[in-house]
Amino acid sequence: MNTPPRTRKDCEALDRGDALATVRQRFALPDGLIYLDGHSLGPATHAALERVAHVAAEEWRRGLIRSWNDAGWFDLPARAGAKLARLIGVADRDVIVTDSVSVNLFKLAAAALQVTGERTVMVQADEFPTDRSITAGLAAAGLGELVVLQPHERVDIRAVRPGVLIKSAVNYRTSEIAEIAAWERAAKDTGTLIVWDLSHAAGVLDLRLDKWGVKLATGCTYKFLNGGPGAPAFVYARSDMATRMSSPIRGWFGQKDQFDFSADYTPMDGAARFAAGTPPILSLSSLDAALDAFEGVDLSLVETKARLLGQLIVSRAEDMGLELISPVEAARRGGHVGIRHSDGYAVVQALIARGIIPDFRAPDAMRFGVAPLYVRFVDVWDAMDGLADVLATRAWDRPEYRVRAAVT
Amino acid sequence: MNTPPRTRKDCEALDRGDALATVRQRFALPDGLIYLDGHSLGPATHAALERVAHVAAEEWRRGLIRSWNDAGWFDLPARAGAKLARLIGVADRDVIVTDSVSVNLFKLAAAALQVTGERTVMVQADEFPTDRSITAGLAAAGLGELVVLQPHERVDIRAVRPGVLIKSAVNYRTSEIAEIAAWERAAKDTGTLIVWDLSHAAGVLDLRLDKWGVKLATGCTYKFLNGGPGAPAFVYARSDMATRMSSPIRGWFGQKDQFDFSADYTPMDGAARFAAGTPPILSLSSLDAALDAFEGVDLSLVETKARLLGQLIVSRAEDMGLELISPVEAARRGGHVGIRHSDGYAVVQALIARGIIPDFRAPDAMRFGVAPLYVRFVDVWDAMDGLADVLATRAWDRPEYRVRAAVT
Repeated sequence: MNTPPRTRKDCEALDRGDALATVRQRFALPDGLIYLDGHSLGPATHAALERVAHVAAEEWRRGLIRSWNDAGWFDLPARAGAKLARLIGVADRDVIVTDSVSVNLFKLAAAALQVTGERTVMVQADEFPTDRSITAGLAAAGLGELVVLQPHERVDIRAVRPGVLIKSAVNYRTSEIAEIAAWERAAKDTGTLIVWDLSHAAGVLDLRLDKWGVKLATGCTYKFLNGGPGAPAFVYARSDMATRMSSPIRGWFGQKDQFDFSADYTPMDGAARFAAGTPPILSLSSLDAALDAFEGVDLSLVETKARLLGQLIVSRAEDMGLELISPVEAARRGGHVGIRHSDGYAVVQALIARGIIPDFRAPDAMRFGVAPLYVRFVDVWDAMDGLADVLATRAWDRPEYRVRAAVT
Repeated sequence: MNTPPRTRKDCEALDRGDALATVRQRFALPDGLIYLDGHSLGPATHAALERVAHVAAEEWRRGLIRSWNDAGWFDLPARAGAKLARLIGVADRDVIVTDSVSVNLFKLAAAALQVTGERTVMVQADEFPTDRSITAGLAAAGLGELVVLQPHERVDIRAVRPGVLIKSAVNYRTSEIAEIAAWERAAKDTGTLIVWDLSHAAGVLDLRLDKWGVKLATGCTYKFLNGGPGAPAFVYARSDMATRMSSPIRGWFGQKDQFDFSADYTPMDGAARFAAGTPPILSLSSLDAALDAFEGVDLSLVETKARLLGQLIVSRAEDMGLELISPVEAARRGGHVGIRHSDGYAVVQALIARGIIPDFRAPDAMRFGVAPLYVRFVDVWDAMDGLADVLATRAWDRPEYRVRAAVT
């Protein structure tokens, strides 16, 4: 398992023996494309496309307002949440689909601060931008005091102080996995609550959050969970913790007796209290259907395949003399591999022009995603062939590949 | 105009002379249904259905991550915002589509409090539940001090204190319109910032927010704007006000240089700083297309027709001896008419069973919506015939019509 394939034939053999191979058929992948960007936007499944068409043309168009009851729109956030719960190793009722990661980080961190009775809200210096700015905004609003920790590669677990820490389970740039259980143990000793950002972890790692002592988390659903562009995020709050928490954003979808219009606000039980406004049903339905791609899938196989696909990238990158941003050790890496290149943006554009889609994160990270549900070993092999050729021929060295688009 | 039609023939004549009559063709209304619930969930337009299908099957499925640039997903919140701006009488750049009304009320009220330097956050006792609970939650989070004002029918404009007031432009139950310009004048005198909730006003009234001195507003887009179930809401922040405001929820979509990952947080210019997380593209695209139903539509005609349709309901209700919840005077009423009935829930169920769809708000309000873009005079006439018959025959008096669904 730790020896990556050395030829395309090896890759073909691995694909033939892959227990996940048939899962790829659940995806509506475009022909002639090698898609290694599932860590940014997962592809559509057939089920999600069908569901969106049905929700629009039948549930909305014909059912109209009646679909809140008849089509089950009302409890869709909890039903999709229960599907998600099984992918992160927690109780079904402890997950609700709602809002975005940004909004959820805010709600969870603010509510967690109140529980701890502390003011300190911590974030690492190199966290994903929204994690950093949400934390800073919380402090600027007067809800806490910001403490910026060392970057994730240097941060010491003993740096945790009493208060709240926002932390990614997998770093967006390096793909390094945090030792979740160890962090939770340290946090327990200091009276710290950690709000985990699972955006780059859920759907690709075999997460066992409950076992690892995790109490609070959020994550996005449009990466390895394939929910569709901007599909709503989720909140996990362990029930014993949730009952002690009060969302600062008390919207009507987090309220018990929502349609008793005279009632004073009583939060719903558990994680559902972190729901707020009316959920975006089209995007939410897409997610709900997309999660069925994981039906019958063993997440330990997913994690194992991601490591092996990643090792293939690592070994080919080393052959090319490229500098890795990600850990070499497979067990320390999530579902993508980061490779440093000073002209990385142009290199990625040249690959896209050839039908190979990785992505780029400023200033110099090319990211190759290896979503095990639909990426084959031959895909990665061919993509690395493409990369080798683009670099050897300097195909990336064209002015048009340097023009930055709005979204990179 | 103030004399409502007295016969179905009168209604037919009004429909023939209706300058908005052709706009109805833009909607994909189901056959055999009279839909008077556009104040709760607007129907699908052909354009929205086509757009959703295209976004799912082409932009997501085939374009994948490239669609953030190539299909213009990235600036869709601002483009849809500009369309919306024209419907509420403000500058294009001052509106952004983002999040839900609940989340936006929180962001705007928290940011407005910081601008005023005050602690008082006000809401009327009978506001829509989410407006009340968001305000209370803001106070519970320690961001302000809650002051509950008299219900909207009794509140005195002089009750406004320095601080922030959350207020609906049209009351969800009675449909009573607030005198927006007068409230803004009073607020100016006391140093109060009003955050208007336009949920029941936008798309049915000829709003001139800029002219009336409005600085801050949010509103939902799935009612009279027909954006689709749970379509994202909008934020209006007048640019001179926005530049002084800091959203407590600093998400990456509200950040300048969003993809310069090393940058410190600098908010986008204007209202766009109130965007937070990644927007739900399917739901947002539906809204963007739906707004085109207003293309070439004169909002003063929309408002006038809503009044006349409302007067028809009022006069028929008076004929039936029913008690109105809404003002009798057309100019004081928004896009729906509330009628009180102690068995209102069952009456509404009986109407729905006959293909006539109004809605119900606890404890006793039947609401009949008159969205002028697709509701005809004959529709309202026939619905009132249905109501008269349901009441005369006590057709509502069946056990199954008393069973409350999850969503009412």
